[in-house]
Amino acid sequence: MKKVTVYITLKQGVLDPQGKAIQESLNSLGYNEIQQARVGKTIELLVEEGVDIDTRVKEACEKLLANPVIEDYHFDVEEAVKS
Amino acid sequence: MKKVTVYITLKQGVLDPQGKAIQESLNSLGYNEIQQARVGKTIELLVEEGVDIDTRVKEACEKLLANPVIEDYHFDVEEAVKS
Repeated sequence: MKKVTVYITLKQGVLDPQGKAIQESLNSLGYNEIQQARVGKTIELLVEEGVDIDTRVKEACEKLLANPVIEDYHFDVEEAVKS
Repeated sequence: MKKVTVYITLKQGVLDPQGKAIQESLNSLGYNEIQQARVGKTIELLVEEGVDIDTRVKEACEKLLANPVIEDYHFDVEEAVKS
């Protein structure tokens, strides 16, 4: 079993109102050193072995997980730790 | 200027209905090798230098960015790249 972590971020230049709200909240709490905040997401997948993980995950990102028009993504593959 | 990336994930054992929905969507698209999906978020902060970044960001995470009851977080600090 592999653990794939997909990191999805908004492309540069795309407005991020949620990030702006976080930045303003931080500033109003006194964290004035914070100049910008941008929000992204991560999706951790547990994937069975035996498939070409790189190709399949890339395809899944393009089709479902990310919006390639406004988002960038990349992913890491590692051995899943038994829990 | 430093770039701090905060990674926030749900603690193990906390239900993740959004992740479940993603997993089921992936399975119904034919990605049957995906056994589990869990969603987290990232927050990229641009922070002015001159403060104790580790302490300040940890405090901001506990107060605003993460919910320490159900979420784990960690963060990386790196040099911000001029864009």
